[in-house]
Amino acid sequence: MTKDRKIRLGAFVRGPGHHVAAWRHPDVPANPGLSFQHYADAARTAERGLFDMVFLADSLSARNGEQPIETFERTGHVVHFEPLTLLSALSTITQRIGLVATASTTYWEPFHLARLFASVDHLSGGRTGWNDVTSADAPAAANFSRDQHPVHADRYDRAEEFVAVAQKLWDSWDDDAFVADKASGIAIERHGIHAPDHVGRHFRVKGPLNVARPPQGHPVIVQAGSSDAGQQLAARTAEVVFTAHPTLESARGFYTELKGRLGGFGRSADSLKIMPGVFPVVAPTRTEAEDKFDAIQRLVDPVVGVALVSGLLGGVDLSGHPLDGPLPELGSSDAVKSRLKVVSELAASRNLTIRQLYLAIAGARGHFQIVGTPKDVADMMEEWFTGGAADGFNVMPPILPTGLTDFVDLVIPELQRRGLFRTAYEGRTLRENLGLARPVRGAAEHQERKAS
Amino acid sequence: MTKDRKIRLGAFVRGPGHHVAAWRHPDVPANPGLSFQHYADAARTAERGLFDMVFLADSLSARNGEQPIETFERTGHVVHFEPLTLLSALSTITQRIGLVATASTTYWEPFHLARLFASVDHLSGGRTGWNDVTSADAPAAANFSRDQHPVHADRYDRAEEFVAVAQKLWDSWDDDAFVADKASGIAIERHGIHAPDHVGRHFRVKGPLNVARPPQGHPVIVQAGSSDAGQQLAARTAEVVFTAHPTLESARGFYTELKGRLGGFGRSADSLKIMPGVFPVVAPTRTEAEDKFDAIQRLVDPVVGVALVSGLLGGVDLSGHPLDGPLPELGSSDAVKSRLKVVSELAASRNLTIRQLYLAIAGARGHFQIVGTPKDVADMMEEWFTGGAADGFNVMPPILPTGLTDFVDLVIPELQRRGLFRTAYEGRTLRENLGLARPVRGAAEHQERKAS
Repeated sequence: MTKDRKIRLGAFVRGPGHHVAAWRHPDVPANPGLSFQHYADAARTAERGLFDMVFLADSLSARNGEQPIETFERTGHVVHFEPLTLLSALSTITQRIGLVATASTTYWEPFHLARLFASVDHLSGGRTGWNDVTSADAPAAANFSRDQHPVHADRYDRAEEFVAVAQKLWDSWDDDAFVADKASGIAIERHGIHAPDHVGRHFRVKGPLNVARPPQGHPVIVQAGSSDAGQQLAARTAEVVFTAHPTLESARGFYTELKGRLGGFGRSADSLKIMPGVFPVVAPTRTEAEDKFDAIQRLVDPVVGVALVSGLLGGVDLSGHPLDGPLPELGSSDAVKSRLKVVSELAASRNLTIRQLYLAIAGARGHFQIVGTPKDVADMMEEWFTGGAADGFNVMPPILPTGLTDFVDLVIPELQRRGLFRTAYEGRTLRENLGLARPVRGAAEHQERKAS
Repeated sequence: MTKDRKIRLGAFVRGPGHHVAAWRHPDVPANPGLSFQHYADAARTAERGLFDMVFLADSLSARNGEQPIETFERTGHVVHFEPLTLLSALSTITQRIGLVATASTTYWEPFHLARLFASVDHLSGGRTGWNDVTSADAPAAANFSRDQHPVHADRYDRAEEFVAVAQKLWDSWDDDAFVADKASGIAIERHGIHAPDHVGRHFRVKGPLNVARPPQGHPVIVQAGSSDAGQQLAARTAEVVFTAHPTLESARGFYTELKGRLGGFGRSADSLKIMPGVFPVVAPTRTEAEDKFDAIQRLVDPVVGVALVSGLLGGVDLSGHPLDGPLPELGSSDAVKSRLKVVSELAASRNLTIRQLYLAIAGARGHFQIVGTPKDVADMMEEWFTGGAADGFNVMPPILPTGLTDFVDLVIPELQRRGLFRTAYEGRTLRENLGLARPVRGAAEHQERKAS
């Protein structure tokens, strides 16, 4: 470990917090998903804690139509802000923290999305990141005039072209193309114009973009796919990977494999930061931490618990199976493959009943869960960080705002004391703080030409 | 005129200002289109002036590929923020002013756009409006994998269905559907769920939206079309119409015709506010105002002037025609029909050369242009407002920030002295300030069922 290497931290802000019963907790405000004050407080707390970024998830549907009303009416956080508009608003009340939003390449158009992210990068002075995901859920398809979502392989093919088009659009202009010379009347340096003129399998996009090159060159590219196709896409284009691992061994295997793929794309190991999700329930003593966790677990409605397991398994019907019996045998499916693997392995490895399984994942949902003292959490992070399993972590507070405040007040000082975490922001942009290079204009396109 | 009827005002904020040479003016900052500080100052000035709304235009391309480089490199304001992200940011630094963004129904998906506007309406506490336009420009088509933009009639058919789908999506939930009852574990009142399940000619959208009903019920619907199809769409769905009229007579004719169409849709005359654009160059004396205007006009590069006329005429090639000769005879086209009519009528009525024509439209571009004292501007507005030509105006400052500051400091007090304009905001939402009713949930859908 070099002296300069520091843990990277994301604050994964989900309105009520990550625990499935978070919305019922007395510390959580009612319907926080549409309270700007709530998100503003969380972003300010994360910035006070010197987090690299705020991370927002997304989905393109509110309801799976096949979900029974008994489950749906018990579901918290069904409605919330659209992430890019929320980030734009947050950009005005923060100064240094990165702002990462999730958006799907399956149902967006590259021109719209590249433009929105470029705009937020300008609004925030270079603090944006894009978590590009593909959409696997049928309910989203039904909101976009499609009968079915595309199959896994096609989604990734589209995703790869989508990211390439977005990068070309961000590279539409030299950084100094807009000379705005009032005396001569020349507004744009003509050699600084580089329209993409993209013609591909999925998209034809002429350009140029009607936003100047983003302050970061490109917003930071974040990804979360763990399938083989997902890893290839990440190895080629991602700069941050958010991933779910319930054990150190699983995380280490993923870390080794993904870092190993970078060379094939001419990339160095440190050009991609791997950040597993961590769900921390932290308190000054272990007893207090366990009590805190129990208080949340007690709020899980069995109807919701079973639906959670079923949902993570791609909609498997568990209604005929007793709560205190084992998970039934599962076939393979085109649904979110990585989650399926994680959840079913978890159930098998610990011999869990359905009830035990939903309580085991009601918080972290397949991510690493830790209930303990600040030292326990720092120990775990240090072990993963120095043991070849992580460059940092996406912190998933169980409830908000207190779960994040606890982490900032209790864990951050311990990480700083150990020299594992910054004591001040190093730079002004998200790239600078993450230690990622600013992309040279046209480099992605150049690489594409070489490859073909 | 009733005592309560007041002039409605929009501040049409275009980065450098509306004059085609605005970017070259010494009072205008370099590249204001991507300066948040610049837009924030303009929004705060408009709010200080008690304007109903800030209005942002939009386009989905930076460059017409057929435009010669000599013109393009002399074009100001080619790049700028995307309007919805900009409005989201502005929502945090303003309290009462409305925030209206333009977005095209031709290249957006209803779920994305309805969601973005709903999100901004929540962020702003009910201050959003959507100027829905159709896209007629070929360069936009080339950014969205299309060979050509759709023909006029099809665009309006899609637009009408698009607005209906958006309204159904905003009506996905009762206003009080999210009960968030922590004790019982019921998050959503089941009878408050109303998924659109829309199946139409252009879209199939199941819903519900993943944003709660907007604070205003629906964002205020703004439109700008003046063709027959545009007026029908406006009469059916618009609540504010922004329109371009170079004379009082033209504005009065449009006002009478459009208001006359409302009855056919069961709507009252005051449920739609007609706001012609006004380009005011204002100073304490007429001489000062004229000097101010001359100083801007002198900055028009002939290359840009000719391109402006050509562009407003849908891309007609004027290169073979002498600057000091007349405009050539023009055929009809599918391009923006209303603008074509306005510009060619203007040239014919005043017997203008090409040079005189471009100087005549370099500022207002077909909108009403007035150069004079605060009294002159107030007289004109009073005449249009009381004379059946306008419910208010979309004010298009020639340059920013000073053109807007001048209006707020000089014209607003004169309008207030005459009792024509508010002295304080009446409400908290844009609807309340405009005097528009909050839509009853499901009313649009009910009307649609009756009509079919």
